[in-house]
Amino acid sequence: MAFDFQGIATQFVAHYYNTFDTNRKALAGLYRENSMLTFESSQSLGAASIAEKLAGLDFQKVKHVYETADAQPTATGGIVILVTGKLAVDDESNPLTFSQAFQLCQDPQGQWFVFNDIFKLIYG
Amino acid sequence: MAFDFQGIATQFVAHYYNTFDTNRKALAGLYRENSMLTFESSQSLGAASIAEKLAGLDFQKVKHVYETADAQPTATGGIVILVTGKLAVDDESNPLTFSQAFQLCQDPQGQWFVFNDIFKLIYG
Repeated sequence: MAFDFQGIATQFVAHYYNTFDTNRKALAGLYRENSMLTFESSQSLGAASIAEKLAGLDFQKVKHVYETADAQPTATGGIVILVTGKLAVDDESNPLTFSQAFQLCQDPQGQWFVFNDIFKLIYG
Repeated sequence: MAFDFQGIATQFVAHYYNTFDTNRKALAGLYRENSMLTFESSQSLGAASIAEKLAGLDFQKVKHVYETADAQPTATGGIVILVTGKLAVDDESNPLTFSQAFQLCQDPQGQWFVFNDIFKLIYG
């Protein structure tokens, strides 16, 4: 636990949702060949497939406001993050509540990427 | 991804919440020396400390009803799970919404245990 996992997680989460909301296609760069996305229980494997899934989501505009991003180091040098927050799509006035779990790993160049990504909307 | 991560996750989640609701102290057996719990952003390290934290939570009765438990394998043979659900404590009639992320790992005997555990209540 010698590294600043919470700081890395906080930076990642800010970057992830900012990219999601402003340039969704650029999210591809945060995933790798063997990365996984489970989006509302639908699974995608690999950066290309994940980017296609995210680009095809049925809204034009989206704004995420995350409220908490709790992080823990893993046994193998990764970081697990649980995010909770709200998002607003297009001109909907009622924001949706979501929860999202990530595992970040480092590639051989030391770059952090998303290995695991599970997203769920939460209905009151 | 040759192993049945979703089946293991489903079994684990059923066992975890049943144990939580009926015999909270027995949860200690699901953690190990280096396991981590972040409960409402408060951190505990190690099975003993985690069990003490969970045993000391300020309610007598609790009933978890989980709604979804999406699982993914990790790069190192573990399983990441994102659970969403509701829980009712004591005689409160209004259930609370929660989200919880786990990483399960296997010990040298092949027994699955909780390495990472992050729990958050979600307020509408």
